[in-house]
Amino acid sequence: MHFLIDGYVRGVIPDYQMSAFLMAVYFRKMDFEETAIFTDLMLHSGIVVDLSSIPGVKVDKHSTGGVGDKVSLILAPMVAACGVPVPMISGRGLGHTGGTLDKLESIPGFRTNLSLDEYKSAIGEIGVVMIGQTHEIAPADGKMYALRDVTGTVECVPLIAGSIMSKKLAEGIDALVLDVKTGKGAFMQSDEEAIELATTLIQIGNRFGKKTVGFLTDMNQPLGYAIGNWLEVVECIECMKGRIVPDLMEVACTLGGAMVMLGGKARSIQDGIVKCRDVIRNGKAWEKFVALVRRQGGDVSYVEHPEHYPKSTFVADVKCPRSGYIDNIDALEFGFVGIMLGAGRMKIDDIVDPKAGILVTKKNGESVSAGETLAVLYTEHTHVLEQAINRIERAFSIATKPSPSPALIRAFIDEHGVHPWQNRLTL
Amino acid sequence: MHFLIDGYVRGVIPDYQMSAFLMAVYFRKMDFEETAIFTDLMLHSGIVVDLSSIPGVKVDKHSTGGVGDKVSLILAPMVAACGVPVPMISGRGLGHTGGTLDKLESIPGFRTNLSLDEYKSAIGEIGVVMIGQTHEIAPADGKMYALRDVTGTVECVPLIAGSIMSKKLAEGIDALVLDVKTGKGAFMQSDEEAIELATTLIQIGNRFGKKTVGFLTDMNQPLGYAIGNWLEVVECIECMKGRIVPDLMEVACTLGGAMVMLGGKARSIQDGIVKCRDVIRNGKAWEKFVALVRRQGGDVSYVEHPEHYPKSTFVADVKCPRSGYIDNIDALEFGFVGIMLGAGRMKIDDIVDPKAGILVTKKNGESVSAGETLAVLYTEHTHVLEQAINRIERAFSIATKPSPSPALIRAFIDEHGVHPWQNRLTL
Repeated sequence: MHFLIDGYVRGVIPDYQMSAFLMAVYFRKMDFEETAIFTDLMLHSGIVVDLSSIPGVKVDKHSTGGVGDKVSLILAPMVAACGVPVPMISGRGLGHTGGTLDKLESIPGFRTNLSLDEYKSAIGEIGVVMIGQTHEIAPADGKMYALRDVTGTVECVPLIAGSIMSKKLAEGIDALVLDVKTGKGAFMQSDEEAIELATTLIQIGNRFGKKTVGFLTDMNQPLGYAIGNWLEVVECIECMKGRIVPDLMEVACTLGGAMVMLGGKARSIQDGIVKCRDVIRNGKAWEKFVALVRRQGGDVSYVEHPEHYPKSTFVADVKCPRSGYIDNIDALEFGFVGIMLGAGRMKIDDIVDPKAGILVTKKNGESVSAGETLAVLYTEHTHVLEQAINRIERAFSIATKPSPSPALIRAFIDEHGVHPWQNRLTL
Repeated sequence: MHFLIDGYVRGVIPDYQMSAFLMAVYFRKMDFEETAIFTDLMLHSGIVVDLSSIPGVKVDKHSTGGVGDKVSLILAPMVAACGVPVPMISGRGLGHTGGTLDKLESIPGFRTNLSLDEYKSAIGEIGVVMIGQTHEIAPADGKMYALRDVTGTVECVPLIAGSIMSKKLAEGIDALVLDVKTGKGAFMQSDEEAIELATTLIQIGNRFGKKTVGFLTDMNQPLGYAIGNWLEVVECIECMKGRIVPDLMEVACTLGGAMVMLGGKARSIQDGIVKCRDVIRNGKAWEKFVALVRRQGGDVSYVEHPEHYPKSTFVADVKCPRSGYIDNIDALEFGFVGIMLGAGRMKIDDIVDPKAGILVTKKNGESVSAGETLAVLYTEHTHVLEQAINRIERAFSIATKPSPSPALIRAFIDEHGVHPWQNRLTL
């Protein structure tokens, strides 16, 4: 394995041999020991950041990605406001899901490409930093990920685990909380697959001495109301200023509670959730967010006055075809239509329009009347609007009676196994 | 499949995607329909030779390759001498096994790189021709075979079947006889694997309208006594001149009998075997061989007077360590030691020494006395001699009692299944 990974990074092993190996792993899997060795080699293909000079237990979160998943933007400053340092390295939009980097960069001036020295000084100074993967972090993963993308070998638990954990372990963290999404809008569409991945990630984290826990969360409908980079930033700003979006804040505070607990600033996850809620209520999470934007070069005036941000040229309402109850919202369709409107990339070098996206007006379980607005679309591409309206209208399924919503947080997972999750706090 | 194969030949599909596909097939196999389509696309990636203007039923043989397998050199002129045209396209040494082309080219002047026009006129003129694969024949296979060799995807029945049959079908044949080797010195080490491959090859041949039958033959000990290119040519010359090597001639005449039967010049395989024996006895096979060598530019004086051929600088005897009976000869070791002595290639651009090789003196079942010669080694590489002698000595296993030899021809296989084989003729 060392011969292979090391040779691949040095260019001695060609792509065609690595892709044969990747396909062999796709069909034959790797056992836990092999996955751990694989992760270790990917991790040590680059720099492993040492944050031990910075006081506190450094905790990060990783999400497998979903539609409307803007949790990191609230979570990082919120947990930092509770006194737990959050060094976060994020990715760009992938497939139908958005990326934290694209969201942050919709704030004019915000720099996600800090050097590792800037990264260290930012986390030391304000307790939170959010950057993109650099070439120094797990370069084997960067090279291998691009190859997996074009050889049909993305969806493979040991390869996903090695890719995620090598990057996270290289950040300099002490502990990690996972948000493994499951459902139509997630990469893992079944609970079984999601649990298999979560369990592997947790075992790998713990093998490397980083306390790792995870939550299985629902991704059948979009999270919150906004899909699209700046629209999502605005939704996060509103939440941090006290206008709570229930599902979004339930996920943020649950993950945050676990992070604060792992960071040693709460006795339990529930206690951590209380502390997260408190820093939202008393404005300290918001203050930390503003400090983060300022520290990384963002124009604070836009986050303080989102109404000054440029507006989309075309805005279109999607109307409800008949009265009833929202039974299901196809998150995957929202992801794809969002990309069509300009919010994401179809090809790697597409330019993202930060203003583009969708605001959902009605969510699962709500009653609707014919002619009411279900969603609003924002774009510069007038030629795609009609198709986008049709697809979003069809993405809502409307029933005559309300049906019970599935639990948003499906389970808590740690090294001992999968546990039912019952949140006993209101946000 | 068309998109993939066609794109690969045109250079639109890169090696790294093809190797991922090959590894997927390695683990997931292809069903018969897929294998037939795959073969058809490889076949039509290049020229399909039309030999319909040449009278007679054209028949070829394919062997999966073994140590000391020089059967083609006797078989092609022998069957042609029976009146059945034999258009033969052969390969080079592969792994531990020798290649017919390397053997032919040990005859000074012999050209295996005829153009397709020369190929056609030779078969029309003397009824036999032996050349190497040209770039015009199944180019998809040539490109894919090189990739399989470096991605661990060689040993896979549907890929082997597509590779063999696309080349054979492109030659312009009407019928085909297969020699599927089984045992320690073969690529297929078990009868089960060999039967699976033979059955697939036969079904593909018949699907394409070419009558195809096969034999399962033993490859636990080397075939005949000679291993090494010129040494094997000399052994064939002696056989064709009447000094019969029993196991070699049993395989040659059995395969030949089937070829003569398929070519319409015998009523049965047994009848075909009689005809083959006759053309050996009356010198017509030998005359055809000389004509073949002359037609393809070879220096006939060397095949008529092998004693004029250059000699190896180093000749070493391997002595028998103790008295007893030869119980087993490890053909694989003979293959590898032969390469070490210079008879084959370790790397693709290694130069083959035509004189190098091994002459076996004692074969399975023979009694031996301590100090007797078991084998003689021929090489230019004095530095490998000691190791070669040790390895060949250990490749003989000597027992206190004689043990029964396994049948040389294990089974006959046609489209109806696998049949026991009992040769009722003496050669």
